[in-house]
Amino acid sequence: MPEINRLDSTNADFGARLDALLDRLPERDSQVQSVVADIIADVRVRGDAAVLEYTRRFDRLDATSLEALEIPRERLKAAWDGLPTALREALSTAHRRIRDYAERQGLQGFSFIDAHGNELGQRVTAMDRVGLYAPGGKAAYPSSVLMNAVPAKVAGVRELVMCVPTPDGIVNETVLAAIHLSGVDRVFTIGGAQAVAAMACGTQTIAQVDKIVGPGNAYVAEAKRQVFGMVGIDSIAGPSEIVVICDGQTDPRWTAMDLFSQAEHDEEAQSILISPDAAYLDAVQAAMDERLAELPRAGIVRASLRARGALILVRDLSEAVGVSNHIAPEHLELSVADPDALLDEVRHAGAVFLGRHTPEAFGDYCAGPNHVLPTSRAARYANPLGVYEFQKRSSLIRCSPEGARALAPIASRLADAEGLQAHAASARDRR
Amino acid sequence: MPEINRLDSTNADFGARLDALLDRLPERDSQVQSVVADIIADVRVRGDAAVLEYTRRFDRLDATSLEALEIPRERLKAAWDGLPTALREALSTAHRRIRDYAERQGLQGFSFIDAHGNELGQRVTAMDRVGLYAPGGKAAYPSSVLMNAVPAKVAGVRELVMCVPTPDGIVNETVLAAIHLSGVDRVFTIGGAQAVAAMACGTQTIAQVDKIVGPGNAYVAEAKRQVFGMVGIDSIAGPSEIVVICDGQTDPRWTAMDLFSQAEHDEEAQSILISPDAAYLDAVQAAMDERLAELPRAGIVRASLRARGALILVRDLSEAVGVSNHIAPEHLELSVADPDALLDEVRHAGAVFLGRHTPEAFGDYCAGPNHVLPTSRAARYANPLGVYEFQKRSSLIRCSPEGARALAPIASRLADAEGLQAHAASARDRR
Repeated sequence: MPEINRLDSTNADFGARLDALLDRLPERDSQVQSVVADIIADVRVRGDAAVLEYTRRFDRLDATSLEALEIPRERLKAAWDGLPTALREALSTAHRRIRDYAERQGLQGFSFIDAHGNELGQRVTAMDRVGLYAPGGKAAYPSSVLMNAVPAKVAGVRELVMCVPTPDGIVNETVLAAIHLSGVDRVFTIGGAQAVAAMACGTQTIAQVDKIVGPGNAYVAEAKRQVFGMVGIDSIAGPSEIVVICDGQTDPRWTAMDLFSQAEHDEEAQSILISPDAAYLDAVQAAMDERLAELPRAGIVRASLRARGALILVRDLSEAVGVSNHIAPEHLELSVADPDALLDEVRHAGAVFLGRHTPEAFGDYCAGPNHVLPTSRAARYANPLGVYEFQKRSSLIRCSPEGARALAPIASRLADAEGLQAHAASARDRR
Repeated sequence: MPEINRLDSTNADFGARLDALLDRLPERDSQVQSVVADIIADVRVRGDAAVLEYTRRFDRLDATSLEALEIPRERLKAAWDGLPTALREALSTAHRRIRDYAERQGLQGFSFIDAHGNELGQRVTAMDRVGLYAPGGKAAYPSSVLMNAVPAKVAGVRELVMCVPTPDGIVNETVLAAIHLSGVDRVFTIGGAQAVAAMACGTQTIAQVDKIVGPGNAYVAEAKRQVFGMVGIDSIAGPSEIVVICDGQTDPRWTAMDLFSQAEHDEEAQSILISPDAAYLDAVQAAMDERLAELPRAGIVRASLRARGALILVRDLSEAVGVSNHIAPEHLELSVADPDALLDEVRHAGAVFLGRHTPEAFGDYCAGPNHVLPTSRAARYANPLGVYEFQKRSSLIRCSPEGARALAPIASRLADAEGLQAHAASARDRR
């Protein structure tokens, strides 16, 4: 049977053991930090030339101009046309469902008039230009292209620029097809910190963007951290996580495979099952043994389960939710007869999958909600990626002459108390 | 007359001169970075003891326990009761108006059923615990306490913890009164990186928070950057900025004082007037000369205007908005006869003040919208502080058995294309 941690909430050391399993503060490698800082500084000064040089060095692509690294729209369309029909239809359906969900997410402005005739409001506008990063190589996922691009399109962003590295010129046709489907405006085959720097600072060929989103390796993540402030960024994704809460009545084979579907991502991924039914935990562990044989990535799954996986026995389902709230997982499956009863108690989770017929994998591809979700306990304070991440609000204030006379003495009194006399005088001018 | 940069959009070097005035990428002092990293690491390991030690060293407060540095509620109430009546009333009115505005800002969830009977939704919950930072000393502003605490309260955050340093034991009574009014749950007289670290990591006395908001000095800002990922943070505030677009018909004395009201914050603050009327720019500069005499902080105002202020002549009001969109200012006054005509073209601004009777100072204190706004061009992608910054969304997915059968082949096909066989198998289990 695969090794996996077994915890029991009635044990005195339960809290400590759980926290030890969860503890993985993002470590920042000072070597990576300084390499990235140098690349950003260089791209900022030398622009295209620096990007070309790093692309030559890291991706072994020898281009004489950044334009030569842009993928023409016809090439994207050709990739789309070349896909097997079944795959093209699956991508189309996923795209439509992601868009349908996103269309309900847009922010709304408002406006109201106070008792003095002043108008107060909030206005929503889309960003002008957004940069999408898509990893190359083995982590090149067409589903990520859809999940990052579709909400930006729905938000009304005027221009989407994408960077996707193609080391040694190797391209992923399904990724190109997904880019075509998403309606991205410009695509460059550059990657790493140099791609992030180019989008954040702007170069001769790539205009500065307002925000950069999308997953990447340690260099990309560090580059996003360092350019934050020049541009907005999405959250820095940690390893993927799932918590399954089960009442013991779901087919243990299903639960085993749901846990595997996180564990197969990488050795750092985390799969946790919580149940008040000890026999069920045993049954799932037995089912794991059996179903591992189905998986080409069994080695990764075993390593992930051994290092970070857990089967947790609790007193009851309410305690299970309490444990999950502490974990604040990226994905939470409520694999129980009455998920609504538990949902009321759920405080923190990136996405909640209700009932036994809702595996997390649906959310990764085609249910509709975004698969970019807060990890590493960030569901305590952060949001799934969504349309709202590509819009921003402006406050609106419009005073009538009478309304200004009502506000002037309040503002000037508070400004005087803070020693800001120009504020006070500016307010009093409208008395 | 006070020195101030004069720019003309018809000059060939206009773009370069404007960008030179705007350019102020946040510089990160490596000395500050390493001091802060050490403090955070120390507080993380030693908790209360470390916080007490730094508070002794930096604020010269000698306490034997962190409990001794907590301000009792009675002390806050006494500060409130001790305020002059007029100031108490001004604070109360400001509080009520900020709350009334915030109450319209809360996020809304949604839910819908797809063609297959699957439910897809978005659920909104408040954060559990939020940490507010308020600076001590000369930058101690009661208005900041209201602006940070009120939206968190309206969001339904369960516990608000506040840290406000009191170097040498000196407290600001108006700040304490504002804390009382805001309904903050616990207040500690600690500050700097050690206060941020205590809230981010948790100590024996201070529970870990989910998000930290509020302004502070360079050490506080760097500490917030470094703990991001353990907790959420608000944006890192740069110097304050205002752009006034005027058609030349507003009393130049008013406009002069509106520009001063940013310039008086500090030498780094930025005040920019844009108008198509050259004579008006001259008139405002003359009015500045006259009105500087009203200001105790005239030295700061002069330095700010000389280094970072500008009077910009443009061809017409539409070009004025274009220049403003490039600046993406924190505050934008549309001091014109028909502000709505210009508002349609405004793409980026933290807050927009419509018409001649709406000085920015109203927004700082009592209009209702939050005065914590994106600076340094961040209005391109960031929001004013608001209720939504203390809430977060979870995606909801609930599949019916039939609905699961419809999604299973799509998800499994895409998962197979990505080489993630456990995902594919987990989806196929629900066929």
